[in-house]
Amino acid sequence: MAKNENHNIKLRIWFYSGENKVLGKGRIELLERIKDTGSISGAAKQMKMSYRQAWQMVEEMNEFSKLPLVEKQLGGKSGGGTIVTEAGERAIKAFHTLENKVNAFAIKEAEKLKF
Amino acid sequence: MAKNENHNIKLRIWFYSGENKVLGKGRIELLERIKDTGSISGAAKQMKMSYRQAWQMVEEMNEFSKLPLVEKQLGGKSGGGTIVTEAGERAIKAFHTLENKVNAFAIKEAEKLKF
Repeated sequence: MAKNENHNIKLRIWFYSGENKVLGKGRIELLERIKDTGSISGAAKQMKMSYRQAWQMVEEMNEFSKLPLVEKQLGGKSGGGTIVTEAGERAIKAFHTLENKVNAFAIKEAEKLKF
Repeated sequence: MAKNENHNIKLRIWFYSGENKVLGKGRIELLERIKDTGSISGAAKQMKMSYRQAWQMVEEMNEFSKLPLVEKQLGGKSGGGTIVTEAGERAIKAFHTLENKVNAFAIKEAEKLKF
């Protein structure tokens, strides 16, 4: 089966700061879900992870990015909530852009390399 | 810490045939160790996996590649052994070449995307 098809490629990308993971596919999804739900716990629930796990990821993303990607907002009518900052929005976009470009490049290069 | 450093990038690539994994970093290492040791069991031992696990990986690589990547050799003075075929050698080289090229491309692209 599939002997005559070309192989296709999957790839995953992570951003590190030194040895510390800053962003990867999962953390980008977490940012997107925080943006949608307005809370870390809502995002954690959607991703079937514990609040503690999600909170730790957010802490690490914030610590190792130049600017915080996620911020708590205080009070207000809605009782506050959690937002994705502008830097966070840029990170989401940057990650998807990079993923798409690198993917396209890898597919093109892989076509040259039959085995 | 590290707030002013650029982020660095790590990436992993897998070759698939449809939904079936053919090659990834681990399987390439397995091929390389089979080449070095002349046996699946020797390679498995070095990689701290079971013979069964290594053997299954080899079966899958062979099944979903255009040509077998690994072959058993019969008898002879040394009592036979397992070799990496020419197609297997090409696959090892192709994988490393792709990994290096895609890595270089990703690093270059990531530099444009600060967050």
